[in-house]
Amino acid sequence: MKKVKCYAPATVANVVCGYDILGFAIENPGDQVIVSFNHTHTTRITKIEGDEGKLPLDVKKNVVGHVVNLFLEKVKSRQGVDIELYKKMPLNSGLGSSAASSVAALVAINELFENPLTKGELLPLAMEGERLASGNAHADNVAPSLLGGLVLIRSYEPLDVIKLPFIKDLFVVSVHPDINVPTGEARKILKQQIPLQKAIEQWGNVAGLVSGFCTGDMDLVGRSMKDVIIEPIRSMLIPFFCEMKEIALENKAIGFGISGSGPSVFALCKNKDQADEISDRLYHLLNRHQIKSESQVTKMNNKGALII
Amino acid sequence: MKKVKCYAPATVANVVCGYDILGFAIENPGDQVIVSFNHTHTTRITKIEGDEGKLPLDVKKNVVGHVVNLFLEKVKSRQGVDIELYKKMPLNSGLGSSAASSVAALVAINELFENPLTKGELLPLAMEGERLASGNAHADNVAPSLLGGLVLIRSYEPLDVIKLPFIKDLFVVSVHPDINVPTGEARKILKQQIPLQKAIEQWGNVAGLVSGFCTGDMDLVGRSMKDVIIEPIRSMLIPFFCEMKEIALENKAIGFGISGSGPSVFALCKNKDQADEISDRLYHLLNRHQIKSESQVTKMNNKGALII
Repeated sequence: MKKVKCYAPATVANVVCGYDILGFAIENPGDQVIVSFNHTHTTRITKIEGDEGKLPLDVKKNVVGHVVNLFLEKVKSRQGVDIELYKKMPLNSGLGSSAASSVAALVAINELFENPLTKGELLPLAMEGERLASGNAHADNVAPSLLGGLVLIRSYEPLDVIKLPFIKDLFVVSVHPDINVPTGEARKILKQQIPLQKAIEQWGNVAGLVSGFCTGDMDLVGRSMKDVIIEPIRSMLIPFFCEMKEIALENKAIGFGISGSGPSVFALCKNKDQADEISDRLYHLLNRHQIKSESQVTKMNNKGALII
Repeated sequence: MKKVKCYAPATVANVVCGYDILGFAIENPGDQVIVSFNHTHTTRITKIEGDEGKLPLDVKKNVVGHVVNLFLEKVKSRQGVDIELYKKMPLNSGLGSSAASSVAALVAINELFENPLTKGELLPLAMEGERLASGNAHADNVAPSLLGGLVLIRSYEPLDVIKLPFIKDLFVVSVHPDINVPTGEARKILKQQIPLQKAIEQWGNVAGLVSGFCTGDMDLVGRSMKDVIIEPIRSMLIPFFCEMKEIALENKAIGFGISGSGPSVFALCKNKDQADEISDRLYHLLNRHQIKSESQVTKMNNKGALII
């Protein structure tokens, strides 16, 4: 029986000033999904590993089952499908865990069906996975997980997704403190009205970040990685955020910020030595304060989801 | 006696979604300033043409006198200077009239002194001209008038100005309806608190506009030329704004918007024929409604202020 296995990478959404519009993929971690036909007319999740028993096997409640069913609806198939999900990253980490699962499942099932849908057609289905996971069909994790690189979600209606020029050899430190910050909560604490003046500062920085990436000016990217709207509020949910940021910037990170809605944080670095140093220091800082964490160094990923 | 003559171009600030952070220079119109040494220890404005008698000859009240004095202070000179100002564009038009005068005066006086200051050092002095003219030391007209091209003001404190990659052969229609919209008034009517959701839409569009310019993707620039915050309010001060926008977009303009704080509007076009057609139609629309206007077609300018 034909089986298809897909790897989809973790992602860092928001990217400091780019709240809700930017996200990038990283090489590691990433989820794996294996799909195969079965002889029933139903979609089944036959195996989940790496979730500490937290994810449901019910296909309607698990993003991989949900998006596979949406795919089958879209291609008008009543074929039965078995899904195995191998989680390689913590849930609710802020590294786009649900997005990686949805994207891996969709790219795998599309390959199993010999690619009837384009990536552009898979994307809205993956966003429906996000709606199931968090109540919000956001694209800033699924789009970079699918496409790789740094991705701009210019608009949702209509959906307009642009992969920005890729800068090679950027290293990313991601630190996941073992505390719980549910995405919904992290959204609720934001103010729904903001001062125009702050918004102008923010879009100046967004413009700087994007033009820095487009022209390869990493100093400009660094100067632009400032968030005057979201980070001052959300960082309160992350213990020792300011200390971690100070350490990262003192050790020459291009920039530092919250990954997605947290609690993971990330530092963008020009080389592996700096990234290793920062990773080490952040881990030890949290450790000294009795906060368990996973800290790792990886590269920015340009390929997105891949059949393996 | 040595005389130096400088031309500084008109500019379109804001550029739809880029309120307070973007501006570009156009080939025409532009102001001219001639400076020469005199045998006194004072700065004098000896001639102003093209202002219909509206601008003061008092050096402290006229931007050209003010910025020349700031220049002399900066270079610690007590040399007397005579200034002639040739205005080539309407005052309070939204085309950066005061900015062009300030920049022309500064580039001229700098040349007269054999260029002791860099453009980066002239810029803050030109911004002081804007403070005198409008009460606000904004840079989104003076920076593109000085540098040419499309310029990003990423931040004011510290001042961080980036000239974006230039797209050749873009045509600009500028239409100046003969009505009065003072910059101060146009600022006052803006709401000082805005919905976060609108701000996100805006910075998505800012990111799209900037990446479109950086990568030469004019379709993306066009899709991104949307302003959900400033234009809905300020356009109310400009008669037939919506009709003009409709005409411009129907006739294949890349985008259309308010120039600066108005009342001038502009359309960005891929070729001269489209621009001529739009210019003509907008002029006639206003004319049918008994509004006098000046409508013209020019190219985007990449050189900024020039000694001539």
